[in-house]
Amino acid sequence: MSWNSSSIVAVGTVAFDSIKTPFGERERIVGGAGTYIGWSATRLGVGAGLVSVIGEDFPKAELEAMTSAGMGLDGVECPEGGKSFFWAGSYHEDMNGRDTLATELNVLADFKPVIPAAWRQAKWLMLGNIDPTLQASVLDQMEARPELVVLDTMNFWMDIALEPLKAVIARVDVLTINDEEARQLSGERSLVRAAKAILAMGPRYLIIKKGEHGALLFHHQDGELVTFFCPALPLEDVVDPTGAGDTFAGGFIAHVARIGSTDFETLKEGVVVGSALASFTCESFGTEGIRAVTGDRLEQRVKAFRNMMSWTASAVVTTT
Amino acid sequence: MSWNSSSIVAVGTVAFDSIKTPFGERERIVGGAGTYIGWSATRLGVGAGLVSVIGEDFPKAELEAMTSAGMGLDGVECPEGGKSFFWAGSYHEDMNGRDTLATELNVLADFKPVIPAAWRQAKWLMLGNIDPTLQASVLDQMEARPELVVLDTMNFWMDIALEPLKAVIARVDVLTINDEEARQLSGERSLVRAAKAILAMGPRYLIIKKGEHGALLFHHQDGELVTFFCPALPLEDVVDPTGAGDTFAGGFIAHVARIGSTDFETLKEGVVVGSALASFTCESFGTEGIRAVTGDRLEQRVKAFRNMMSWTASAVVTTT
Repeated sequence: MSWNSSSIVAVGTVAFDSIKTPFGERERIVGGAGTYIGWSATRLGVGAGLVSVIGEDFPKAELEAMTSAGMGLDGVECPEGGKSFFWAGSYHEDMNGRDTLATELNVLADFKPVIPAAWRQAKWLMLGNIDPTLQASVLDQMEARPELVVLDTMNFWMDIALEPLKAVIARVDVLTINDEEARQLSGERSLVRAAKAILAMGPRYLIIKKGEHGALLFHHQDGELVTFFCPALPLEDVVDPTGAGDTFAGGFIAHVARIGSTDFETLKEGVVVGSALASFTCESFGTEGIRAVTGDRLEQRVKAFRNMMSWTASAVVTTT
Repeated sequence: MSWNSSSIVAVGTVAFDSIKTPFGERERIVGGAGTYIGWSATRLGVGAGLVSVIGEDFPKAELEAMTSAGMGLDGVECPEGGKSFFWAGSYHEDMNGRDTLATELNVLADFKPVIPAAWRQAKWLMLGNIDPTLQASVLDQMEARPELVVLDTMNFWMDIALEPLKAVIARVDVLTINDEEARQLSGERSLVRAAKAILAMGPRYLIIKKGEHGALLFHHQDGELVTFFCPALPLEDVVDPTGAGDTFAGGFIAHVARIGSTDFETLKEGVVVGSALASFTCESFGTEGIRAVTGDRLEQRVKAFRNMMSWTASAVVTTT
């Protein structure tokens, strides 16, 4: 599988992480939003052209594994003498929070994403969480408006670059943020009010990620707010949630790409498939879980979501 | 509608609450677990025999409204000169926590629940959150084992009466607690591990209530842990969540009662119906919301849950 017209293009970091959780620690393992998006998309048989930057310290074997898996690396720069982006973090005992122990931007400090010419008509564009002005510059480079543009961001950019962020949000189809970020961006406590306010900013769809509490997909249909909810799969052990959000986003857009439709039904499926893929990421450190996904295992897990969410409606609702 | 063999029997407080939320405040309005359970069950056309205690200060008009709605009050004592149980609380700005400002036990201090003779063969028994030894004494009074016994409890009893609590839990069919209580009771952080540990204590079903994050129903089927998840309906405004858990429990057991089956499919529906009813309680102060539920409004809301949870599975899951 190499990059083709049904592949996705994803902008995001390819980097090293040092991670400590109650289940153990790992030093300088491969991570980054682009990496997780790429592994996730390719698990669905969808090629992923990555636009990123790495240092010379990034292992060649890893790049080969990514290429073999279906990632296109023509958009990954490797400046001479550069060192890869590095993040170190430690999760709290209850896994509900984490402390950043180190952030070394390195090559990311001067990153100016350049989309390879062959990818500029991509139909499916994933703008991972980076500076919103860079996200906008990527959109500017596209020769045709993609069929679906998904943008991920975080509170950091709301704090320091709200106006550029709002400007790029207005240009995308799907915004993915967490519940606290939705509240911050909208100034509304209620997620329903927050969703209405954010959809009024431009995107057709809003995904609010709630981690272990699942994900909400919001959309306006005939002037009404329509909501889809997908739970997170309760897991025996959440070993390391790093990359779960990026895995989710990669699976979401890749599902849309493989179906080739951007209607609400397909996006709902995408949320389920993305959630199923993210559950694998949570079960192991780093990319270990998502790399090991097979078609059978994914199918079983999607079935687990189906079972968890389905109920009959045999009863007529009556009152006194 | 009066009490009959398909009614539920519910033990729980009938009391006064003073409530302050970011949306306003109410002084000494009618509340209590038994009250919410009764209003909720009767919205489904299911009679509710309440076993409780009130003071002479409890308004006659309120008792008449409850009777008209389908509640049986033969099990509600009213000791001479007694004052009703009173609770006052203030919700935090983000509604995620609340402070208790006052708790006056009054008549509840000496409450010894007595099940009226005519109700001792009830098929559907809801043990609301009271002292576990009193919950056990109610079970002891039943002349036949009910088809379904649901027990609600809270961390308070885990702190001060763990052994009596475990003893009564072992005797019921469904335990309803929140996520933190499930972790406290089991000593497990993971809800999957917590569910396994709690189901091993005796109950056939476990419901973990997560408030705005929905509810999980766990069950063992052929030795496998089976999970059903129902989200909470995202609301424009959560005005006052007091009584939402009791409304949920009342709707849950009343749905089981009206269907007349305790199989997993019926219990799943019960979780949805209970969640739909609880959403009405959250939208207004006190019992205002649940009292105003009509068949049409409930049907629409159950449909909203259906829409929020349903997705097609058009896509074949494939990998590279």
